[in-house]
Amino acid sequence: MTDRVPLERKVLNENDRIAAELRARFRENGILCLNLISSPGAGKTSLLERTLGTMAPGTRVAVLTGDIQTDNDARRLARFGFPVKQITTGGTCHLDARMIERALADWKLADLDLLLIENVGNLVCPSSYDLGEAAKIVLLSAAEGDDKPLKYPSIFFRAALLVLNKIDLLEHVPFDIARARENARRIQPKIEILEVSCLTGAGLEAWHGWLDHRCQRAQMEAALPAG
Amino acid sequence: MTDRVPLERKVLNENDRIAAELRARFRENGILCLNLISSPGAGKTSLLERTLGTMAPGTRVAVLTGDIQTDNDARRLARFGFPVKQITTGGTCHLDARMIERALADWKLADLDLLLIENVGNLVCPSSYDLGEAAKIVLLSAAEGDDKPLKYPSIFFRAALLVLNKIDLLEHVPFDIARARENARRIQPKIEILEVSCLTGAGLEAWHGWLDHRCQRAQMEAALPAG
Repeated sequence: MTDRVPLERKVLNENDRIAAELRARFRENGILCLNLISSPGAGKTSLLERTLGTMAPGTRVAVLTGDIQTDNDARRLARFGFPVKQITTGGTCHLDARMIERALADWKLADLDLLLIENVGNLVCPSSYDLGEAAKIVLLSAAEGDDKPLKYPSIFFRAALLVLNKIDLLEHVPFDIARARENARRIQPKIEILEVSCLTGAGLEAWHGWLDHRCQRAQMEAALPAG
Repeated sequence: MTDRVPLERKVLNENDRIAAELRARFRENGILCLNLISSPGAGKTSLLERTLGTMAPGTRVAVLTGDIQTDNDARRLARFGFPVKQITTGGTCHLDARMIERALADWKLADLDLLLIENVGNLVCPSSYDLGEAAKIVLLSAAEGDDKPLKYPSIFFRAALLVLNKIDLLEHVPFDIARARENARRIQPKIEILEVSCLTGAGLEAWHGWLDHRCQRAQMEAALPAG
């Protein structure tokens, strides 16, 4: 539908402008912002539960979680005692930078070191919308099939990290984890890859290590002069 | 992004016009057209493999299969010997009626009784695009979570049938199948529900029965005067 293209470009340009402002604000405040993207049910909320569950009280972390409908995810995540806000898109298939800007309006960024954004469950559309994040993280569940990087290349191309989740199911599903890694690297040779099970906890030390390393880098970058 | 709304409505109106033409052509030719929608990796292609695999040679069935990239699915399905065509959307997150119209241009509809359309893997956007189908079918994998009908209500509201797939994984995943059914019925009280495993074959007799019944109904409707 070619008549959509110019307007889409305008919408994406406007999104990029707001995202750039957000990125500058995150950098000023030494905040690491991560944008988690996956199909519905690949385990974004479970990974966030595992992440918040190991954090000491007083850790300067907050979560924005996007869904078409319901605040189920925010309720699941709020019990860890950190600030969590649900963004209910009411039909829109992705988060955009304006939604993030609005959701942050009554939070003090100076109080945060880490902002985790859980996007709407959709392996396609969210990859086009910059939210000002330092990195996109794509989750792929072992139940989904090892061919998904080739069929949905955009998000695998743009993500810094692939989290292969539900590895506890590997013996029960036709999923070749070596082929999944190979397919992801065909799309994006530099993508980092972690294998985890948010159900059993397997592999999560490496995830926590990745996150710590990235948080430290964000703090160091904030200490440098801009530009 | 409110400036998108009028154009989206125009695009959808144009889509609906083409879909209505397709629906009329399917009806004239006594073709049952079904539109399969799910998240990536929920099992649409596997269900089609199971479906084509039981059909006698000469059955008047054809498949259109949509993906962002790759013709993997068409290649998986072509080995059964029935006409299969891949629609590669090149980035677009859903199939639309124009794509179906184009893909059918060199097929004779008079030669078909059943047209199965496998949409792009996406639980959100495809639900807005009428393809002229007699019914939408939503697949949900047991690995995805029983809360999905509430979080992605649009497709569950519009589908005539919910296929709960991967029930072989039920003992390995935190999925309450009674709650999944209940959540789907909260969105759409009249939705039909089948429980299957395309891996083991469990429950597929009921699927074949549903399909036969629907095919017979389409043939009967074609024999009635229009309107």
